[in-house]
Amino acid sequence: MNNTRVLLAKRPEGLPSPDCFILHESRAPSLAPGTVRCKTDFLSIDPYMRSVIGGNHMGQTVEVGGVIPGEAVATIIESDNSDWPVGLQVRCKTGWQSISDHQTAELSRIPQGLTQPSLALSILGMPGLTAFAGLTSLAKVGAGDTILIPAAIGGVGAMAGQLCRLAGAKTIGISSGPDKCKIATHKLGYTHCIDRLHGDIAEQLQAVAPEGIDVYFDLVGDPILTIAAQQLALNGRVILCGLIQDYNGQIKTMGPPPGLWIGKRATVMGLVVYDFEHQREAFERGYTPLVEQGLIQGNESIYQGLAQAPQAFCDMMNGAALGKVIIAV
Amino acid sequence: MNNTRVLLAKRPEGLPSPDCFILHESRAPSLAPGTVRCKTDFLSIDPYMRSVIGGNHMGQTVEVGGVIPGEAVATIIESDNSDWPVGLQVRCKTGWQSISDHQTAELSRIPQGLTQPSLALSILGMPGLTAFAGLTSLAKVGAGDTILIPAAIGGVGAMAGQLCRLAGAKTIGISSGPDKCKIATHKLGYTHCIDRLHGDIAEQLQAVAPEGIDVYFDLVGDPILTIAAQQLALNGRVILCGLIQDYNGQIKTMGPPPGLWIGKRATVMGLVVYDFEHQREAFERGYTPLVEQGLIQGNESIYQGLAQAPQAFCDMMNGAALGKVIIAV
Repeated sequence: MNNTRVLLAKRPEGLPSPDCFILHESRAPSLAPGTVRCKTDFLSIDPYMRSVIGGNHMGQTVEVGGVIPGEAVATIIESDNSDWPVGLQVRCKTGWQSISDHQTAELSRIPQGLTQPSLALSILGMPGLTAFAGLTSLAKVGAGDTILIPAAIGGVGAMAGQLCRLAGAKTIGISSGPDKCKIATHKLGYTHCIDRLHGDIAEQLQAVAPEGIDVYFDLVGDPILTIAAQQLALNGRVILCGLIQDYNGQIKTMGPPPGLWIGKRATVMGLVVYDFEHQREAFERGYTPLVEQGLIQGNESIYQGLAQAPQAFCDMMNGAALGKVIIAV
Repeated sequence: MNNTRVLLAKRPEGLPSPDCFILHESRAPSLAPGTVRCKTDFLSIDPYMRSVIGGNHMGQTVEVGGVIPGEAVATIIESDNSDWPVGLQVRCKTGWQSISDHQTAELSRIPQGLTQPSLALSILGMPGLTAFAGLTSLAKVGAGDTILIPAAIGGVGAMAGQLCRLAGAKTIGISSGPDKCKIATHKLGYTHCIDRLHGDIAEQLQAVAPEGIDVYFDLVGDPILTIAAQQLALNGRVILCGLIQDYNGQIKTMGPPPGLWIGKRATVMGLVVYDFEHQREAFERGYTPLVEQGLIQGNESIYQGLAQAPQAFCDMMNGAALGKVIIAV
């Protein structure tokens, strides 16, 4: 059985380019006892991978020549464990390849009743859980709050904006270009969306939130982090979650000086989604029906075929993708 | 009636020196209707004044030629309001002068049952309330926590260390030189005190708190803020409260990069004591008996006479003072 894999050809410097990756065909070995073999259906492409392939993301790395890691929805095609039968669709860390073998402990079921399986990687997957953990457990967003979400239509942002809207908050997104801003306001229901490519971000923010912002969910680092901090309302909350600009290695976010946090009486919280695995089941159970009923919209940018994964990754990292990036393998 | 006043002679650059101040004698005008006249007994000298005389502290400033602002314990010597009789000792913002006139709304009573009135400016005053608000309301310090307090024997630090000790926490102070470290451990009951003038701070901290610190109460800014952040335990809490190094204008604290807060899953909270005025009465009622019974020690460095105020202020700002700086006027 042939396995198509995407390997790291070289570590990127700055914005990644497709030539950092190379497609490779190999033969899959025979299946080890007790394990299962999966065929990748949908592969999730996420910003944190930029630091993994750069050499370090919270201890996780990949060497040049190694398979790029990643999570996917996959179908079991061979099984040596009757609890995980052939034909079952699961979520697992396949990496960027068409075939992967797993211990059953590495598999999880996708949410019950989900019509569109790829959503288990986006709105109902790790990005959705990230938004849920940050806004529900940490920031405790509620009616009356004004919240700012950069990368508004991305994997985390799309769920974050909709969770806040459902909570009764005024939601302000930041995105790049009129098409993406229109997705934010028309599809995802943001109250406003600031186009970071047209006009001064700070001035636009001041115009739509003159009373300041109560919650800022940082996914990008500076310069937007510092702008948001300057326009934070007194007693504002800030979730620090991602640093996409830093992942590209173009800047080193220092954030605002502590004196600004003091003046704002801010509460600043670091979020790592891996800490919230215990909330995943409740999250999926609560939100799958809302997604199925169309009360929460998925927003995926689906690329066809594993060969497109490098380009899809690069589009995401330079802001060209129109939603959570998924590869239909 | 003559009034001795300390005026701002020039704005300091870097560490302040006594020649930034000038002593001045004037005649007090006659008392306005409804007001009271106070004779300053004990004057509080605090680090935030460095930014006030530098030109800005949260909107508060003083012009060259103006009286240096400050809080004091004072005795009413003339009164046009029977609720505030002559002879009553009160707390009010006299500024650095021997005589001051006040609207009665500007006066507050000193804690009942307090034998040593100057403590109403230190351990039971604004510095004590700062420690109480930060550690009780914000950081919620409890048994099992390891807490790090820089400026360990200063106005805020002395109370912070003792509150944490009473809460059952392991308390680690940072101070300068063996004499001050001995005050921290022998008088104030710190578990350990790191001498920042002898040896590497980070290495010493690692040695006494190998498991990391749960709470850091920042009073000083960088470089200690960043060292503390690096040695924070997972889910650690950080209270941002003061930036004494920045007040001197020698450095501009940037703090650790946000990526470090994320990795630590930190909660970072800005504290301004003025927000906790509503807790003052409960704080005084709860802690005055502990002070009177010797369960909490005051640690004041008392200078004699208003003419010593400039030197006392400079000693405090360069770390030479052995406790909360008070002027016995």
